[in-house]
Amino acid sequence: MAAHSSEIRVRYAETDQMGVAYYANYFVWFEVGRCELLRSFGHTYRDLETDGILLPVIEAHCQFRDSARYDDALEVATTGLLLSPVRVEFRYDVMRQGDGTSLAAGRTVHAAVDTDGKPRRLPPDIQAVLT
Amino acid sequence: MAAHSSEIRVRYAETDQMGVAYYANYFVWFEVGRCELLRSFGHTYRDLETDGILLPVIEAHCQFRDSARYDDALEVATTGLLLSPVRVEFRYDVMRQGDGTSLAAGRTVHAAVDTDGKPRRLPPDIQAVLT
Amino acid sequence: MAAHSSEIRVRYAETDQMGVAYYANYFVWFEVGRCELLRSFGHTYRDLETDGILLPVIEAHCQFRDSARYDDALEVATTGLLLSPVRVEFRYDVMRQGDGTSLAAGRTVHAAVDTDGKPRRLPPDIQAVLT
Amino acid sequence: MAAHSSEIRVRYAETDQMGVAYYANYFVWFEVGRCELLRSFGHTYRDLETDGILLPVIEAHCQFRDSARYDDALEVATTGLLLSPVRVEFRYDVMRQGDGTSLAAGRTVHAAVDTDGKPRRLPPDIQAVLT
Repeated sequence: MAAHSSEIRVRYAETDQMGVAYYANYFVWFEVGRCELLRSFGHTYRDLETDGILLPVIEAHCQFRDSARYDDALEVATTGLLLSPVRVEFRYDVMRQGDGTSLAAGRTVHAAVDTDGKPRRLPPDIQAVLT
Repeated sequence: MAAHSSEIRVRYAETDQMGVAYYANYFVWFEVGRCELLRSFGHTYRDLETDGILLPVIEAHCQFRDSARYDDALEVATTGLLLSPVRVEFRYDVMRQGDGTSLAAGRTVHAAVDTDGKPRRLPPDIQAVLT
Repeated sequence: MAAHSSEIRVRYAETDQMGVAYYANYFVWFEVGRCELLRSFGHTYRDLETDGILLPVIEAHCQFRDSARYDDALEVATTGLLLSPVRVEFRYDVMRQGDGTSLAAGRTVHAAVDTDGKPRRLPPDIQAVLT
Repeated sequence: MAAHSSEIRVRYAETDQMGVAYYANYFVWFEVGRCELLRSFGHTYRDLETDGILLPVIEAHCQFRDSARYDDALEVATTGLLLSPVRVEFRYDVMRQGDGTSLAAGRTVHAAVDTDGKPRRLPPDIQAVLT
């Protein structure tokens, strides 16, 4: 299992009229988290796509415990776990920096596919890191 | 249980470089679905907020089966179910119009709170419709 | 010159903590306006892209006069004008339905290019409509 | 005149099916630029709002010269200039890090207003920095 932590600063664009970050944005922050996790062990999702491997999301879940507010500095702690050579799950914890409050916990499941949408095994070294 | 169907046209802004709608946008479409559902039985979420009742999302889930593409006309079929006087769940099915392919199925759970974040019962007539 | 009017309903996702629609979203609504304008005379931007013609934005401008609020029904009045066989300008007026208040006026300029980014003339019938 | 430079990493969510960053996102990056500029001289936009001063955008413009791509590290160079005690303009240059290519240049004009939307002078020290 691989782990990494990313910092996000809540943008004004990401708030809504409730005065907090709109819920769909957490899934965008999750994307930042998993891409930074891949980068932390020497890969980028950009290179994966260049090599013809795509990782579309097939399932996404999030529990929202507390609100993120404009300009909050957040930490997105991400872990990745291989479910099979063509399936990977990422888990996310979003915390507010400073007071360490846990704001949300989520997960996404991804299929590894080629550009035709057919299952395609992840590279062995990525499989190794995510096991 | 209440049900309603909304039409969504996929915007170019909602696509990503995979050539399909980015996954977080489904949660925005869910928002359209549940607001139109409320409107269908004579309420608007805007009026609810004016009356001091907010419905923040406390849980969100989606399974993605097939891709929505730019300019696709989608149907978001939404149902709402009261879990308690201060808790409501909406379920969503996203279908591509024309061929009727089911693209995604999701749900969101909402807390009914006042402007201080304290639990606040939904109006009786909304409770009645969602039961 | 071609003209068309589109209806937009302001989404909660599009509001910010000022309680109004975030300014960048107007440019997304402009996209809806120009795509519906193309559709109104028998083309879709999707088909244009399929035929290898892209219309990237090279300039965008907007003046904001009044605020759009959550759930407002807006009208985006769009006109299109050919600047050259490889250059087109769209102009937009965003009005609040009901009271007819003008909220914003903008324009975007687009280059017609092929998939390699080289200038490519718009189809003659589109040129004809936009003249 | 005050100046500051911010770094932005292009998110997958910000790309579109043309394979580049969607144009409206530049205006979101501009927001990051001007907020970081304010922070660089000891203010935050959050504090301004807490003090009852809002800075809604009344005009926005951008010229797009080249494309930002997924995962590109960008630099947003922002300058701020006081137009009057209740009017401020920010200018932005978006560059791709590494090769230093200029991708876009834009500006936004903001009114300083109170929570009722009435003109309200910016604090003297902010006026001083932006002059």
